[in-house]
Amino acid sequence: MRAGDLTTPALLADTGVLDHNLAAMSARRPGPALRPHVKAFKCTSLARLLADAGHTGFCCATVREVEGMAAAGLGDDLLLANEVLDARRLGVLVASGAARVTVAVDSPETIAAVVAGGVGEVLIDVDVGMPRCGCDPADAGRLADDARAVGLTVRGVMGYEGHLMHDPKAERRSDGVAESMAILSTAHAAVGGDVVSGGGTGSWDSNHLVTELQAGSYVLMDGDYARLGLPFREGLVLLTTAVSVSNRGWAALDGGLKALAMDSGDPVLVGDGEVLFCADEHTTVTGSFTVGERVGLRPAHIDPTIAKHDTLHLVDDVSAGADAEVLESWPVDLRGW
Amino acid sequence: MRAGDLTTPALLADTGVLDHNLAAMSARRPGPALRPHVKAFKCTSLARLLADAGHTGFCCATVREVEGMAAAGLGDDLLLANEVLDARRLGVLVASGAARVTVAVDSPETIAAVVAGGVGEVLIDVDVGMPRCGCDPADAGRLADDARAVGLTVRGVMGYEGHLMHDPKAERRSDGVAESMAILSTAHAAVGGDVVSGGGTGSWDSNHLVTELQAGSYVLMDGDYARLGLPFREGLVLLTTAVSVSNRGWAALDGGLKALAMDSGDPVLVGDGEVLFCADEHTTVTGSFTVGERVGLRPAHIDPTIAKHDTLHLVDDVSAGADAEVLESWPVDLRGW
Repeated sequence: MRAGDLTTPALLADTGVLDHNLAAMSARRPGPALRPHVKAFKCTSLARLLADAGHTGFCCATVREVEGMAAAGLGDDLLLANEVLDARRLGVLVASGAARVTVAVDSPETIAAVVAGGVGEVLIDVDVGMPRCGCDPADAGRLADDARAVGLTVRGVMGYEGHLMHDPKAERRSDGVAESMAILSTAHAAVGGDVVSGGGTGSWDSNHLVTELQAGSYVLMDGDYARLGLPFREGLVLLTTAVSVSNRGWAALDGGLKALAMDSGDPVLVGDGEVLFCADEHTTVTGSFTVGERVGLRPAHIDPTIAKHDTLHLVDDVSAGADAEVLESWPVDLRGW
Repeated sequence: MRAGDLTTPALLADTGVLDHNLAAMSARRPGPALRPHVKAFKCTSLARLLADAGHTGFCCATVREVEGMAAAGLGDDLLLANEVLDARRLGVLVASGAARVTVAVDSPETIAAVVAGGVGEVLIDVDVGMPRCGCDPADAGRLADDARAVGLTVRGVMGYEGHLMHDPKAERRSDGVAESMAILSTAHAAVGGDVVSGGGTGSWDSNHLVTELQAGSYVLMDGDYARLGLPFREGLVLLTTAVSVSNRGWAALDGGLKALAMDSGDPVLVGDGEVLFCADEHTTVTGSFTVGERVGLRPAHIDPTIAKHDTLHLVDDVSAGADAEVLESWPVDLRGW
């Protein structure tokens, strides 16, 4: 089947880019030195490629992602890199033997929730500078003691330096990562355990502390990350159809903001022309198009773009547009919560 | 069940607000004078409320929406207010008697696609000033002739003045709508037919031309529209849980940009505090919160927010947060393409 036979809008992933990106990352962070973050693609078929490449432990952002990975037989070592107040669904997975589950905790309440839910393993999540989750670094040791006191196994620490990931200056990014990781290192000394988890695509080569890097977006690359000059290539395209062409100089494509994440800005047109704006189900573009022509758009942010689709089509060459050969059609099976 | 028993993030709709908004619009545009746009909510359970209130013809933006409405028995008169180059799935509905289907056309190619797909009724879609779909107004009569020449029934015209919907100045909005509708009126004279379809929530009281208003967002209201001083109220809230509270002055909620549309900006916190930023699965807010507390966020744009969820929970009072009673849980069953 050709991409031109798909109902548009259709989300296409380039198999060559995937192979390149997976190999480039694995060369630097082989096997368990990488804990791929499934939030970036929400697709167990893609996760299986990573497992086949030796990365058998995964990061998840939601309980649903953990459940879906376990159901797909990819539950060897799943880290929910997020706090939860209700761990009961995770406890069911542990009790059934469907998955090894470790959960991030950063407060007495989240420790209590893990115990109540029937999960036995945790990481202490440490605030390393990003205003989101993570305990005060000074509290990490005490929280680890509290967790052990109620019977939990504390595998180590986690700290995500997400505020630094998109800094366009490599040196500033690298200095910032070093500062954040100094905080995490001190917390680790107080907590103990074998695991130091953190980092992402933007700190893939500058984070020298973590025992496992939590990168995900690198597999198909965001527009934002692509500007950083990393060795990973962009491989995701929304294929659309030009449904209307105006003699006033624009065309309307049949994929809009319900098919594209907009938090990092407009998509970029594949080929000549400019994106004017996105509406619910349309993107208006300038350029020379004919009615019925297939046109590609590169989303600015892949994670939430993929989460809007129920299928991700693997193609031989995403730049071939309608002529690309569809190799596989993967369910985006980790959506929801 | 209480909203506090739901897995978060969970999307809540206020039953009183829905009733108020439906009644306010129906008073002005009763029965067939309103053709509600299902793209705003993608939910046949909500569409059924509108049908029960006398609005039995609906607008759809995608083929999938038409199919889902037909499957739910709401196919009396479905307008696909959008151009398509492949109408075969629509033709199946027509042939089976599952729905009366009318499709917008604005070019020889889209007319040919409708014929090839086996659909018999069209509206001529006219560009009334918004850079998206619609033919040159001067071509409308000729396209209608072409459509009739190949055996189609031309029911009338459509023109969407979407570029004016969010203008905060009521008088400028009203003047702009009048200008756009003058264009549509001239095109209608050249095309013929009984139907003049167009308008939306923002022109609900200023569009005096259309025989049927294509409004949808008014049912639960966008933040953008809410600033226009319309008589419709905001009734959609994303219920989240505060999963982490920092002594540095912020809290992390467990609903982020995968649960909230971001094209019209950040959500607004229900209650005291400010939204700092949204990440994939978190929103960081300032204010006074405790770990485990339920916190509501009002999305800036309801259409694409609802499209990110598989369930919309109808509650008695959306402002009651965790204490709200869940009256019904509706599948968001018109997602996808």
